[in-house]
Amino acid sequence: MSARKIIIDTDPGQDDAVAILLALASPEEIEVLGITAVAGNVPLPLTARNARIVCELARRRDVPVFAGCAAPLKRPLVTAEHVHGKTGLDGPVLPEPAMPLQDAHAVDFIVDTVRGLPEGEVTLCPLGPLTNVAMALRKAPDIAGRLREIVLMGGAYFEVGNITPAAEFNIYVDPEAAEIVFRSGVPLTAMPLDVTHKALVTRPRNEAFRALGTPVGVAVAEMTDFFERFDREKYGSAGAPLHDPCVTAFLIRPELFSGRHINVEIETQSDLTRGMTVADWWGVTDRAPNATFMGDVDADGFFALLTERLARL
Amino acid sequence: MSARKIIIDTDPGQDDAVAILLALASPEEIEVLGITAVAGNVPLPLTARNARIVCELARRRDVPVFAGCAAPLKRPLVTAEHVHGKTGLDGPVLPEPAMPLQDAHAVDFIVDTVRGLPEGEVTLCPLGPLTNVAMALRKAPDIAGRLREIVLMGGAYFEVGNITPAAEFNIYVDPEAAEIVFRSGVPLTAMPLDVTHKALVTRPRNEAFRALGTPVGVAVAEMTDFFERFDREKYGSAGAPLHDPCVTAFLIRPELFSGRHINVEIETQSDLTRGMTVADWWGVTDRAPNATFMGDVDADGFFALLTERLARL
Amino acid sequence: MSARKIIIDTDPGQDDAVAILLALASPEEIEVLGITAVAGNVPLPLTARNARIVCELARRRDVPVFAGCAAPLKRPLVTAEHVHGKTGLDGPVLPEPAMPLQDAHAVDFIVDTVRGLPEGEVTLCPLGPLTNVAMALRKAPDIAGRLREIVLMGGAYFEVGNITPAAEFNIYVDPEAAEIVFRSGVPLTAMPLDVTHKALVTRPRNEAFRALGTPVGVAVAEMTDFFERFDREKYGSAGAPLHDPCVTAFLIRPELFSGRHINVEIETQSDLTRGMTVADWWGVTDRAPNATFMGDVDADGFFALLTERLARL
Amino acid sequence: MSARKIIIDTDPGQDDAVAILLALASPEEIEVLGITAVAGNVPLPLTARNARIVCELARRRDVPVFAGCAAPLKRPLVTAEHVHGKTGLDGPVLPEPAMPLQDAHAVDFIVDTVRGLPEGEVTLCPLGPLTNVAMALRKAPDIAGRLREIVLMGGAYFEVGNITPAAEFNIYVDPEAAEIVFRSGVPLTAMPLDVTHKALVTRPRNEAFRALGTPVGVAVAEMTDFFERFDREKYGSAGAPLHDPCVTAFLIRPELFSGRHINVEIETQSDLTRGMTVADWWGVTDRAPNATFMGDVDADGFFALLTERLARL
Repeated sequence: MSARKIIIDTDPGQDDAVAILLALASPEEIEVLGITAVAGNVPLPLTARNARIVCELARRRDVPVFAGCAAPLKRPLVTAEHVHGKTGLDGPVLPEPAMPLQDAHAVDFIVDTVRGLPEGEVTLCPLGPLTNVAMALRKAPDIAGRLREIVLMGGAYFEVGNITPAAEFNIYVDPEAAEIVFRSGVPLTAMPLDVTHKALVTRPRNEAFRALGTPVGVAVAEMTDFFERFDREKYGSAGAPLHDPCVTAFLIRPELFSGRHINVEIETQSDLTRGMTVADWWGVTDRAPNATFMGDVDADGFFALLTERLARL
Repeated sequence: MSARKIIIDTDPGQDDAVAILLALASPEEIEVLGITAVAGNVPLPLTARNARIVCELARRRDVPVFAGCAAPLKRPLVTAEHVHGKTGLDGPVLPEPAMPLQDAHAVDFIVDTVRGLPEGEVTLCPLGPLTNVAMALRKAPDIAGRLREIVLMGGAYFEVGNITPAAEFNIYVDPEAAEIVFRSGVPLTAMPLDVTHKALVTRPRNEAFRALGTPVGVAVAEMTDFFERFDREKYGSAGAPLHDPCVTAFLIRPELFSGRHINVEIETQSDLTRGMTVADWWGVTDRAPNATFMGDVDADGFFALLTERLARL
Repeated sequence: MSARKIIIDTDPGQDDAVAILLALASPEEIEVLGITAVAGNVPLPLTARNARIVCELARRRDVPVFAGCAAPLKRPLVTAEHVHGKTGLDGPVLPEPAMPLQDAHAVDFIVDTVRGLPEGEVTLCPLGPLTNVAMALRKAPDIAGRLREIVLMGGAYFEVGNITPAAEFNIYVDPEAAEIVFRSGVPLTAMPLDVTHKALVTRPRNEAFRALGTPVGVAVAEMTDFFERFDREKYGSAGAPLHDPCVTAFLIRPELFSGRHINVEIETQSDLTRGMTVADWWGVTDRAPNATFMGDVDADGFFALLTERLARL
Repeated sequence: MSARKIIIDTDPGQDDAVAILLALASPEEIEVLGITAVAGNVPLPLTARNARIVCELARRRDVPVFAGCAAPLKRPLVTAEHVHGKTGLDGPVLPEPAMPLQDAHAVDFIVDTVRGLPEGEVTLCPLGPLTNVAMALRKAPDIAGRLREIVLMGGAYFEVGNITPAAEFNIYVDPEAAEIVFRSGVPLTAMPLDVTHKALVTRPRNEAFRALGTPVGVAVAEMTDFFERFDREKYGSAGAPLHDPCVTAFLIRPELFSGRHINVEIETQSDLTRGMTVADWWGVTDRAPNATFMGDVDADGFFALLTERLARL
C-alpha cells in the first residue's frame, strides 16, 4: 500500500511540532504534500516560522510551507502563549529557519492540491483552529467531495474544556470554522482531549525521547519539558498531553485508537459554551453521525511508536 | 444538635421517593417541614399524588404536601415517562393516597415557612426542576437571605447530559429557574450526575432493600427494578443511579461526598447546550464560586446508610 | 353596558399616572378593581408609593394598591430615572400618600381576583414590565383562560427602541416575562411606541390640561412638562409621548386606535436585540397571530378625550 | 476629477442589473474594474450568467466577470426566486451571454486588484450577500486598509425586514459575512430599505424608461414590470423599490442621499432576529460609529439621473 498523501494544517506549538516530526519520520505510511500555517497557539508569523523550523530540524527543507489566515473567520484571535511560551516553540534553542515561505496562500494551496490530485487522494490533518480549512471549503465547495478524509485534533467531551469550562482551544478559537468543517460531509475523525489527556508524557517517556541522543530526540524532550509545566500545574497531571501527534499516529496505527461514530455539533451561539463539541456519545438525539470521535488510546503503544519513529530522524 | 428543618421540593419519580423515605426515616438529623410538588418527571397532578403516596408508605400522613407550578418558567414542560413510567412511580403496586393536598400553593408555603422561622433555619432540598424555588425567590426576594442552604440534585459536568448531550434533566427542563437559583446568593450544594452515576443500585444492593422484608423495603426494591431498566439499556451500566437520595444522604452524612466550591453557570441561550451546568472545575475562569459541586461519593457508605435507615420505616 | 373591570399593573411614571387618572375619571366605562405596582421606571418602593399618590390625587383612597415583584424574572432591574426623575413622578409637588399598601402580594391579588370573578370578567392593563403578570400566569396557569383580555403598553416595531436600538423599555426590562404574556393565549392588545409616539403632548395640548385649573389638571401639566424634556432632547420631537394613557383610552374609545392582528414574538436570546417585539406586520412568516398590535391613533381625538375626562376629577 | 474605480459584487437580480447599467453608463464618474458574482437572489451559476447578460446588454464585453462563493459562510443558501423569478432576471427576453467567465475566483480578483492599485483607489460596491467581500477580508486582512470605501445595499431599520420581520434579504442570507464587513474598519456607506423603499418605480417612472426606446430602456422597463409585482402585492406600494441602483447613484450624486454616521451592528445569534442591522439611529448606545446609514433619498432626482444615464447606453 502506498503512503497516504496529507496536508498538515498547523499552528506550532510544541505538540504540533512532534506531530509533524512523526509524519516526516514515517514515509512508508505518510507523504506530506505541504504544511499550511494558521494563527492559533501564537500569531501567524510565528506559526509560519515554527513550521519551517520543524521541517529544518527534520532536515526536510523540501516540504513546502504556506502561510494562511491570520485570524479566525469572525472573531478576534485568541492565542495560548501561557501554554506554549512566547514563540510557540519555547524549550529547545533552535535556529531561525533558512527555508522560505511559499508565495501562495495556504487556502489556495489546499484548494489547488485537492483539485490537482485524483478524487479521494488527499487527507487533511488540521492541528490548530480550522480557519484555513473552512476558508478552503467555502471558497471551493467542490473539494469536500474530493477529500479522502479530515483527521483533526480538537474538541472535548467528558474531558471538558481547557480554555473555558466547556471548550477545547482549537475549536474555541474559531467555532464558526469548526462548524463548517463538521458540517462539510467530509469523512471526519476527531482526536479530542478525551484521547489526548490519556497520552501523557510521563518522565520515563520523556527520558526515552532524550535518550535517543539525536537533535530531534533532544529537542522533543526539551519541548515537552517546557510544555508539561502547564498541565502539571493546572490539572495536577502526571505529564504533558501530546495532543497533536495523536493525529499523525492515527494515520500510521489506527488500531491504537478507539471511539464512536456519532453526531458532533459545534456550539457557536452562546458566550458561555462557545466552541463546545457537543458530542452525542450516548445517542440521546436523532441527529445523524458526522464524525468518528475518539475516546481512548493505547498510550504505551502510542509512545512506543513515537519513540521508534523519532529515532529515525 | 437538633434536626435540620427542610422543605423537599420534588417531582417523584422513584429516586425522589427513596430520597423522601430516607429523610422521613432520619428524624434525628432531618425534620421535614413539608413537601412541595413540581412538574418534572411527570405532570404536576401525578407528582402531587406520588408525594402523598410516599408519605403514606412511610406512614407519615402528618407531613403536609403542596402542589406548585405545573410548567417551567418560560418553556413547555418536558417529562420523562421513558425513565419513570406512566405514573412516575411505576414498579410497585401502591394504593391511591387518602391524605389530602394542602390548599396553599407550594410557592406560598415555601415563602411563608422561610419567613415564619428564624433566619438561617430552613434548608431547601429540590429534587426536580427548580420552578417552585425560583418562583419563591422572585416573589419574595427576602427569603434568599433567610435560607440556611439549598441542597439540590441537578446538573452534570464530566458525566455530561442524560436528556441532551450537554444537559441533565432537572436543569434542562427549566434552565431559567436554575439560573435564578444558582445566582441567588443562597449557599448551594449540587449533586450532579458525576456523583449520582457513582451511586448505582447493583443487584446485591437492591436485594439488600428487598431483604428488609418491610413494605418500604420491598417497594424500594421494586421501584429500583423498574427504574434501572433505563440506565442499563442506555449506558450499559451496572444498575440504576439513585440520583435524589444523594441530597438527603448528604444532610445526614456529608462526609460521604466530596466536591469543589466553584463557579457554576447555567446555559440558557443556546438550543444546543441549553440547561448545561457549566462548572469551572479546573478554575479556568475568574468567575466567583457560587456552588459546592459534588464530584464523588463513597457508594458503599451511601448504600449502607440507605439500607440501615429504610429498615427503620 | 356595564363598566369593564380592570386591574392596572403599573410602575408610575408620569404617563402611568395619567393613564390611571383617565381610568379613575371614567367610571361608566372602567371599574378599577385594584392597582398592582411593579419595579420598572423606578424601584418597587417608589412605584408602590406613586400609585397611591395618584389615587389620592384623584381622591380615590378606596382603590386597593398592592406591591408586587421587585425585580424581573431572571435579570437585574434596569430603571429609567433619566426619563422620569428620581421619584418617578418628578414635576409637580405632591404629598406623601396616607393610604396604606395592601398586605397581599400583587401576584396573589391578580390570581385571587381573576379566580373570584366570573370567567371573562377581568381585563389586565399592564403599563410597565410584565413581571407581575407573568408570575401570576405561571403560578396559576388557569387564569389565562379566565381573563377577558390583556391591554398593555409595550414594544415597538417601525418606531424602534427607546432603551436600545431594538427594544422598548417595558419589554426590555423583563423580556422573559413578556414572552410568557405574549405566548399565554390570552387575547392581547399592545400599544407600542408606533402608536404612542403619535400621541405627543404639544404645548397647546399641555396648556389645555393646565387650563382645567384643577389640582389634577395642573399636576398632569407639570408632570408632562417634566417628562417631555427627555423626548424633546433625544428625538427632537414636538412633545412628550403619552405612552400609557393609550391603554386606558383604548378601553373607553377603541375606535381611536387602529392596528393589525398579527404574530408578535419577543426576543430573549440575543444581547443585541433583547426585548425586541418582532412583529410580523407584513405577514412574511407563517407564525400564528397572537396580538393586536396597534399602529395608529387619532391623536386629536385622544387628547380631547383625555382633557374632557381629567376635567371630571 | 477622475472616475472612481469600483468592483461591483452582485447577485443579479433585476435591480442589480439596473445598478450595473447605471455604473456602465457613467464613465466620467465610475470606472468598473470588474464584476464579481455571488450566490444570493438566485444560485451562483445564474448570478454569474446574469452579470454577463447585463454587460452584453450594455455592449461592454470588456468588463471582466468573476464567479465567487456559491454559499454563505456558515449557513445554507436562501434565495429569492419569489421576487426575481426563476432566472433572477425574469421579465425581458435576453440572449444567453457569449462572453466568458474569467478563470480566477472572485475573492482572488478582489484581493489582487486592491493590492495591485495604489492604496485608497478601489471602492467595493456589494449589491448582494456579503460572502465574497468577507472572504476577501479574511483571506487578505491587509486589503481593509487599502480600500477607499465600501458602498453597499443592505439592511433596514425603520423599514424593518423584507425576508423576516427583522431582517433585509442581503444581510439575512449571510449575517456572519455582514458582521465581518461592518466590523472591518473600512469606511462604509449602507443603503438600507429605509432609503430604497423611497425609490419606488411608479408607472410614470417606468414609462420614462420604456420611452427611451433603446434595448436598454425597454429591458429595464420590462425587468421592473416583473419585479414590482412582488412589492405591490405584499406592501400595497405604488411600485417596485429599486434597491441596488441607489449604490451606484450615490457614487455619481451623493447629494441625493442623506443619512447618519452611526453604529450599526449585525445580529448573528438569534433565530428570531438574525440578520437585523441594529442601527443606533437615536444614539442610545455608546458604541462607536462604523457606517453611514442612509435614511432618505431625493426620489425625483434619483429617477431623473437614472433615466438620463440609461439613455446613453
